[in-house]
Amino acid sequence: MAVNAARFLEDLHTLRSFGASGVGKGVVRPAYSKADIAARRWLANRMEEAGLRVQFDPVGNLFGLAEGPSLLLGSHSDSQPQGGWLDGSLGVIAALEIARSSNRPVSVVSFQDEEGRFGVTTGSAVWSGHMRLNRADALTDLAGVPFATARATMADLAGGFVDASQFTGFVELHIEQGPVLDSERDQIGVVTDIVGIRDMVITFEGQQNHAGTTPMHLRHDAFQALATFNARLEKRFQKHLARRTVWTIGYVSLLPNASSIVPGRVSFSIQWRDSDPARLGRMEKIIRTTAKEVAAERGMTLSNGMMLGLDPVAMDPALRAALEAGAEAVAPGRWRRMPSGALHDATNVARLMPVAMLFVPSIGGISHNFAEDTDEEDLVAGLRVLDHAVQELA
Amino acid sequence: MAVNAARFLEDLHTLRSFGASGVGKGVVRPAYSKADIAARRWLANRMEEAGLRVQFDPVGNLFGLAEGPSLLLGSHSDSQPQGGWLDGSLGVIAALEIARSSNRPVSVVSFQDEEGRFGVTTGSAVWSGHMRLNRADALTDLAGVPFATARATMADLAGGFVDASQFTGFVELHIEQGPVLDSERDQIGVVTDIVGIRDMVITFEGQQNHAGTTPMHLRHDAFQALATFNARLEKRFQKHLARRTVWTIGYVSLLPNASSIVPGRVSFSIQWRDSDPARLGRMEKIIRTTAKEVAAERGMTLSNGMMLGLDPVAMDPALRAALEAGAEAVAPGRWRRMPSGALHDATNVARLMPVAMLFVPSIGGISHNFAEDTDEEDLVAGLRVLDHAVQELA
Repeated sequence: MAVNAARFLEDLHTLRSFGASGVGKGVVRPAYSKADIAARRWLANRMEEAGLRVQFDPVGNLFGLAEGPSLLLGSHSDSQPQGGWLDGSLGVIAALEIARSSNRPVSVVSFQDEEGRFGVTTGSAVWSGHMRLNRADALTDLAGVPFATARATMADLAGGFVDASQFTGFVELHIEQGPVLDSERDQIGVVTDIVGIRDMVITFEGQQNHAGTTPMHLRHDAFQALATFNARLEKRFQKHLARRTVWTIGYVSLLPNASSIVPGRVSFSIQWRDSDPARLGRMEKIIRTTAKEVAAERGMTLSNGMMLGLDPVAMDPALRAALEAGAEAVAPGRWRRMPSGALHDATNVARLMPVAMLFVPSIGGISHNFAEDTDEEDLVAGLRVLDHAVQELA
Repeated sequence: MAVNAARFLEDLHTLRSFGASGVGKGVVRPAYSKADIAARRWLANRMEEAGLRVQFDPVGNLFGLAEGPSLLLGSHSDSQPQGGWLDGSLGVIAALEIARSSNRPVSVVSFQDEEGRFGVTTGSAVWSGHMRLNRADALTDLAGVPFATARATMADLAGGFVDASQFTGFVELHIEQGPVLDSERDQIGVVTDIVGIRDMVITFEGQQNHAGTTPMHLRHDAFQALATFNARLEKRFQKHLARRTVWTIGYVSLLPNASSIVPGRVSFSIQWRDSDPARLGRMEKIIRTTAKEVAAERGMTLSNGMMLGLDPVAMDPALRAALEAGAEAVAPGRWRRMPSGALHDATNVARLMPVAMLFVPSIGGISHNFAEDTDEEDLVAGLRVLDHAVQELA
């Protein structure tokens, strides 16, 4: 039985209504928010209607299980604080559509907290054994809420962890979240590997004081320490960065954050990504050394948060070949092989089984943004390539 | 009748109990908070017990009025987000003690929002005519609450604005909030002039995007724009700064402020202070030019908030002479003339009448901080100098 493109798109728009931001097609559905939990309850019902056995695990990962051995398809349904309607959702709804249209055994998953409210791809990290549950429970979000408290809000739904041995492999359809396919007018990207990521919160503690009476030379200004750290890092990274290496300071929190006070403390995130683990390690050394230097020079106390991260992962050749055959069948001459600069749950799942991924274009390369979007023709093309691969594999 | 030092200290500690932070002698009593309004009700009762006529004005400034012409003494009783127990409170309680112990006509004031939740010394700025009420009503705090909404929470207490013509002058006792008196082992500082201040919020809007898939050279990273602005400002200010010039970036707000997202927007405060209005003006030019440059270079849209500020003010010679005589009588050889690097309500009140100020030491120069403190002997010395001057003047 063929996939139903209309039903697929309708479900995709229905999922967007949970946490719809009111700005374009934007979505505000962070992990464990009311909107996120409501969306998972709705997904669970759709899975049951598709004849799948629903199981939530202790961290809120939602599975729709087929009888016996099966391929696992899916992604995540939580969003960034200001997210788009396709990031994660596309892979989950495509999996649902294939599970209910295909006569091959297909299971569906929506992982929890892929967007890292607490860590990095927290739900699949715990399920895959990459992170122990008690370690995850100690993680806190930027508001200081512990992961243990957040997942407890879904305790009424929780069953045990799902046995991974029933799955023959995992395939994730996702938007590219970058400019390549859109600018090259390609419709499909078959992923070769997923880059590795490192993520750490650093805190400088100086001296909070009056911004009018404290002479410049006597200050221990936490913001100025961050500015010096950032400038020195930029300089030292230059000769180490490859074409695809990226680093970001995306979160900054000053204390007390008032215009008349010399900031006494700053906590900020530093995140870096590359496909070469050795380069990730060299960058980590530079970051730690530079932070120590700046703290010493400016009379600050330094504390580094737990470093979260995942190593680069290559896609499984057999699954990848099936996706390439599907791409050539559905979008002949309009697909390419490419790496993933974004992190995905597939990185964790690779610890348990063979994994592969395919991309559809992101208009303007925009993602993690209310403006994120993709042509619906491309969404359906991605669905058909995935279905084609499943019919060949399962 | 002489001042009662024990009663003065007891009232000072009682005032601290409104919004006591639980950390040392810290206080959390921002303008219009529950604790601030409760403290003002308590102060109003103490003023009545002292035989003063209580009047709140439309912005929450609290006056205790003597019969006929009088000297006005006081300061403010609101605190910083994380403040100390003496900043403002000392001047209000000292004024209360002198009003009830002296047989000279003395009125007492506690101005509202001196700490600038909304602007800069908002309450005295409006009362003095430095800022029109409708302009003040349009100001918002960092959470977006309008001043009009905040002052409405005290509407039940509000009378009309107090006629300033009944006051012969204004004298404010305050902690130094700097290191000079403490390090020089002086007990009293008689203020010569108050430095001027400028304060502005600047916003850079770039492009929010995915921190893994957006190449470094294609980013419009708002945090990196702030870092460049800060570095360039530091360089350009060097040849313009005098010994006492200070500038501070104390407030920073990134959007969306998440580690996996290239920040699309940053709003931050830039505040600068000096005793020379011309220098303040030159610094403003550099700030505006540099912000324009950085925005242009990095493809950002730039918006500057309303600039708030006050010009430097010299103290009145006659009031100052009375304070110097009092200082010599109470702390012979242990007092000095000095400028005020901190802004005070006296700056606004100077538009209406002669003003003067005196300082007592801040231990370690620490203020705008839970750790702010002063030896109680020095607090009482300040009270006695103020009383001495009042007996001579009133």
